[in-house]
Amino acid sequence: MLKVPDHQVAGHQADRGKLGPLVDDSGRFYKPLQSDQRGDTEVAFYESFYSNTEIPGHIRKFFPGFHGTQIIEASDGSGPQPHLVLEDLVAGRMNPSVMDIKIGSRTWYPEASEQYIQKCLGKDRNSTSVSMGFRISGLKVYQNSEAGFWQPEKKVVYSFNADGVRSALRKFVSSNLSLDPDADPDCLYASTVYGHRGGILAQLLQLKEWFEVQTNYHFYSCSLLIFYDTESALDGRAHPKVKLVDFAHVMDGHGVIDHNFLGGLCSVIKFIRDIVDEDNKCAKCEVNLGLKENGFYKSNTEIELDYEAS
Amino acid sequence: MLKVPDHQVAGHQADRGKLGPLVDDSGRFYKPLQSDQRGDTEVAFYESFYSNTEIPGHIRKFFPGFHGTQIIEASDGSGPQPHLVLEDLVAGRMNPSVMDIKIGSRTWYPEASEQYIQKCLGKDRNSTSVSMGFRISGLKVYQNSEAGFWQPEKKVVYSFNADGVRSALRKFVSSNLSLDPDADPDCLYASTVYGHRGGILAQLLQLKEWFEVQTNYHFYSCSLLIFYDTESALDGRAHPKVKLVDFAHVMDGHGVIDHNFLGGLCSVIKFIRDIVDEDNKCAKCEVNLGLKENGFYKSNTEIELDYEAS
Repeated sequence: MLKVPDHQVAGHQADRGKLGPLVDDSGRFYKPLQSDQRGDTEVAFYESFYSNTEIPGHIRKFFPGFHGTQIIEASDGSGPQPHLVLEDLVAGRMNPSVMDIKIGSRTWYPEASEQYIQKCLGKDRNSTSVSMGFRISGLKVYQNSEAGFWQPEKKVVYSFNADGVRSALRKFVSSNLSLDPDADPDCLYASTVYGHRGGILAQLLQLKEWFEVQTNYHFYSCSLLIFYDTESALDGRAHPKVKLVDFAHVMDGHGVIDHNFLGGLCSVIKFIRDIVDEDNKCAKCEVNLGLKENGFYKSNTEIELDYEAS
Repeated sequence: MLKVPDHQVAGHQADRGKLGPLVDDSGRFYKPLQSDQRGDTEVAFYESFYSNTEIPGHIRKFFPGFHGTQIIEASDGSGPQPHLVLEDLVAGRMNPSVMDIKIGSRTWYPEASEQYIQKCLGKDRNSTSVSMGFRISGLKVYQNSEAGFWQPEKKVVYSFNADGVRSALRKFVSSNLSLDPDADPDCLYASTVYGHRGGILAQLLQLKEWFEVQTNYHFYSCSLLIFYDTESALDGRAHPKVKLVDFAHVMDGHGVIDHNFLGGLCSVIKFIRDIVDEDNKCAKCEVNLGLKENGFYKSNTEIELDYEAS
């Protein structure tokens, strides 16, 4: 049974009779194959990537699984259409918090048409891409069963400046958005999601190491998807993940590293590292104050017990 | 006594009555202060940089010493003009090999005028800047007292594609250019200049580490100057150095890393690392063949002695 994905935050969406991706209940994600060169480029990338024996295993895990192409009924009612069959990255997660970050200060590539270059250049200049090396394309942050998700509108996300991006990266790991989205985010899950040993920061650093040497592919207009299980975050089992998606504009690297992607990736890393460092500083204060233990907040009862014992 | 610098390979040059920098015999370099905003920006950068106590000492050494400004007779005969007084980076070096590499896939910045942006964008697209994240602006490679320097013409340097850049970086550490500039460069000084413990590669990696965290400055249209003493290179005392020059377009980083510079720097590092790795492989063969010892070529006499001893 195919349905519209629950947790897509950017890109074409298959709601209200439009053409977009679908998912099934076996963990597969069906992405309509764009009929122009983009579809061919994306299929060619997946085929090249998964047949390239030089890609290390710990790098493959950053990419969605690929199961070829398949003709299925398109979401817009236009009949049977070819789709890429990919891994549904958030399958099995109840209420994941998800952020889509388009990497690179430049989303255009020299071989593109002048019209395409100008269109991309305009978007890059009118977003944080040029200034920060990346832009947030969408996000949703789960709060709790009552408040559900905090998900700013597209036009809000698209108008983020540097402060907006910094704030969104803090809100992404915060628990106090449902009360007042303008309040100072508490970054309650910063250590569990970003700073944890296998967390987002560690994964991004692994990816960076590969981008410092790989010269096969240049990833234009490609997104970093980061997500975690908010409901388990307080128990330290947030299962934070980094994945790369959208390869309709991957070009041959011609023996040169993807300096455009790498620069943007390093910029994201710096922002996240700052949040982790800040959190570590706070955590030290809180450990000193007796509010935190083993990286997690104590319950009120525990704090009271400590108080009684003191 | 002021004179035209001997080893400038890029930028405005003070020969034939034109306005350009001058040097004295006490190791100072006098750079005419551009009368528009560029002059002010460069002075402001030097003042900010050298009064910033957060810049670590091992990073300061990558920048020319700064001795304020001074009014001196301009090289074009236009009379007394204000000049930046800087350290003459190659003072005391007899026949240095020098390369000027403009870093960044983008030499323009969002705050610039539309006319300036379009001019820079055109140059970036018509050079290797966009594709490789940097472009070579000039180079000269000393061969020997008879052949002097190998210095390709500006129009040749400006038309380098990726292969031209790769070849120039190999030629920069080669000793066989005077015989036939089209011959395969021997990379004789690769280990001494690039790969040595304190060599170019090690210095670039130090610089990269700083660019991964510094958010004070964005360096547009800034050059990496790399140079060494060719005549001492065979003795392993090439004194290879990396310096940053040209700060007329340094902007406030506004809390974001200079992803544009960092990406380009990582691209240069990859090219140089490939040459060093290739050289290490060759060196292993040559050690096995008995041609090299302790990283240096043996003299013919030594090889003959080895042969006799075997």
